[in-house]
Amino acid sequence: MTTGNTKHDQELMKKINKELVLHLIREKGPISRAELARVSNMSSTSIGRIVSEFIELGFVKETEEKTSGVGRKAVLLDINPASVYVISLELDQNATKIGLVDFNGNINLSQKVNYDPRANHYESVLKLICNSVEEFLSGHNIDKSKIIGIGIAVPGIIDAQKGTVIFSPQLGWENVDIVKYFEEKLRLKTTIDNVIKSRALAENVHGSTKGSKRTALINFGTGVGSALIVEEEIYRGATNSAGEIGHTTVDPHGRLCECGRIGCLQTYITEEALLQEAKIYKNISNVNEIFVSADSGEKWATRLLDRVYTYMGIAVCNVICMYNPDTVILSGKLIDKRPKIIDIIAKKVDELIWDPFKNTYNVKGSNLGESAGILGVSTSVINKYIDIEM
Amino acid sequence: MTTGNTKHDQELMKKINKELVLHLIREKGPISRAELARVSNMSSTSIGRIVSEFIELGFVKETEEKTSGVGRKAVLLDINPASVYVISLELDQNATKIGLVDFNGNINLSQKVNYDPRANHYESVLKLICNSVEEFLSGHNIDKSKIIGIGIAVPGIIDAQKGTVIFSPQLGWENVDIVKYFEEKLRLKTTIDNVIKSRALAENVHGSTKGSKRTALINFGTGVGSALIVEEEIYRGATNSAGEIGHTTVDPHGRLCECGRIGCLQTYITEEALLQEAKIYKNISNVNEIFVSADSGEKWATRLLDRVYTYMGIAVCNVICMYNPDTVILSGKLIDKRPKIIDIIAKKVDELIWDPFKNTYNVKGSNLGESAGILGVSTSVINKYIDIEM
Repeated sequence: MTTGNTKHDQELMKKINKELVLHLIREKGPISRAELARVSNMSSTSIGRIVSEFIELGFVKETEEKTSGVGRKAVLLDINPASVYVISLELDQNATKIGLVDFNGNINLSQKVNYDPRANHYESVLKLICNSVEEFLSGHNIDKSKIIGIGIAVPGIIDAQKGTVIFSPQLGWENVDIVKYFEEKLRLKTTIDNVIKSRALAENVHGSTKGSKRTALINFGTGVGSALIVEEEIYRGATNSAGEIGHTTVDPHGRLCECGRIGCLQTYITEEALLQEAKIYKNISNVNEIFVSADSGEKWATRLLDRVYTYMGIAVCNVICMYNPDTVILSGKLIDKRPKIIDIIAKKVDELIWDPFKNTYNVKGSNLGESAGILGVSTSVINKYIDIEM
Repeated sequence: MTTGNTKHDQELMKKINKELVLHLIREKGPISRAELARVSNMSSTSIGRIVSEFIELGFVKETEEKTSGVGRKAVLLDINPASVYVISLELDQNATKIGLVDFNGNINLSQKVNYDPRANHYESVLKLICNSVEEFLSGHNIDKSKIIGIGIAVPGIIDAQKGTVIFSPQLGWENVDIVKYFEEKLRLKTTIDNVIKSRALAENVHGSTKGSKRTALINFGTGVGSALIVEEEIYRGATNSAGEIGHTTVDPHGRLCECGRIGCLQTYITEEALLQEAKIYKNISNVNEIFVSADSGEKWATRLLDRVYTYMGIAVCNVICMYNPDTVILSGKLIDKRPKIIDIIAKKVDELIWDPFKNTYNVKGSNLGESAGILGVSTSVINKYIDIEM
């Protein structure tokens, strides 16, 4: 219960009404003012006032008149995707993705910039990224005045409020004040968030779990992470670090993890761990060779992969036990390379899950794939913008 | 975003205002109408109307006039704890607790009834409990018209919406339609919930984590369970089963769990597991003897307990990784018997936790103890009642 007052309450009410109208146009557009009034049960005066405001802000546009049945022509309203844009970035181990995302969540342009954040000082890396964004803007003749902000999805522990990367083993960064750097350099409002949380949000708003009330996403990459989305909102925890399934302990007598602790779940799952073990038996140089060996019937590879799938299944089961989601999305490089893994893991989960959870969840792949990080963080930027503008 | 309409919105607004006023009286009472208007920033007319309604419903009472400073006397308002009551039950393995809880969350009367739910058919157990409630009511001359409902806290997987016990290994029940039975027999609106979720809610509303925004509670008992409270609301998950930490897998080659699966975390922690292992070395009959042996320096007992504390620490660390709470409450029979365990586990957690989580949490004991279950489920009953009455 938050404290409030009448004036504050009226403002809140207006905001709720505006958000409702925007939501309806988004979901049902093109839609007429009359239909909006009918569906929302608001007066035509209120609808007229709110819609005018949206048109002025550029969010909403009137489409060409269209014959509605036998009657007279009606002006219809729709979201104007080109009203405002977000520049979204996803910082990965070897490359930075840059995307131009419109108000409807479409990626209009995108580009990859290769870099090596672990081999260079973070300032020179940030400089490189900022220069790339400027080139992206000028190279594509993007009108900077239409950009409402920059969103950056970063792997690791992120303080989204302060705008800092607390700790990113993937980038080799600790306490990097990334938002401050971007805002000074590019003069655009900047938002950062954890990439797995961003991906999960994107899948819930635009992707394969639209309509789900409790989506968990598990990412198998250089680490293993998870995120929980409750009714289109990220569950963050006290310090934006909820979901660190990869560093839950499964065996106090197990392997040393890159985090310096013993027996973390991810020591059985990550590409690095897989590669390290495979090398005991065969001189291979990348994970793909394990899959190739397994495909050609080499027993060591099928055994190794079967164990990985089992631990992936355990990771999913443990997420289900803790979050009790209606849907679990599996994502990450390992999955992207071999989407059929999803069915293998889903079967493992069905075997391993505790009876009371049977039939409470679906296991799915992402349907946004590599775009999910960029889309998710742009959703956060757009939500923040709408929240301020209303 | 929920759809709504103006009429609906106005109703919602009225409800929010009423809840605000009730909240203010609860937090700041005794308080005058003038002060309420000032603090809430609502008009004195609105305050007058809402307060009259509360007085009529009996929630709020006018206290005797009191000299306010040098000025004239003012009538003050306060919650009327005796306006309505809840009969709360906690069904445990060997006993049922019955309590009479007032509108302010005070347990006015309580009683224990011993029973053996595993040795008897559930219907005869339910009959026994209902008879005990009737005796409790008549024995204490409780005015049944003041009872707004019955709340029942039950260990296991509970469908709180349908009012059924899906699965309770502690009681040996499966698919028991407990609410229907109580409502037919006692003619009082009945609510059930999982006991660990109820305890966690009680601690957040009345107990040791008042003011915490994200409380996790871990219960070490016949099983190991956890619950997450986000801003005084239980995080339930899709089927009210979130928090089943005890059945997360920590060792796929580990011990067989009572759930029929291999390597569940609780196989290293529960009293039953502890006792089973201890018996390998010494013929003891209860867990207390292990503590006594450890206290008198028997190495086997200190080793066994140290391993249990380590796994309890792991359980806490894993809950922190997943929920990122600001506070963790440790509860349950093992803790109740030996409260100094809390410090031992807290130290283990400090050693075991992943660096980014250091200093993000407090580990605490319950300060409601055995009453937490009864208090928590009564909070749910009162919240439901207020929600309907407003």
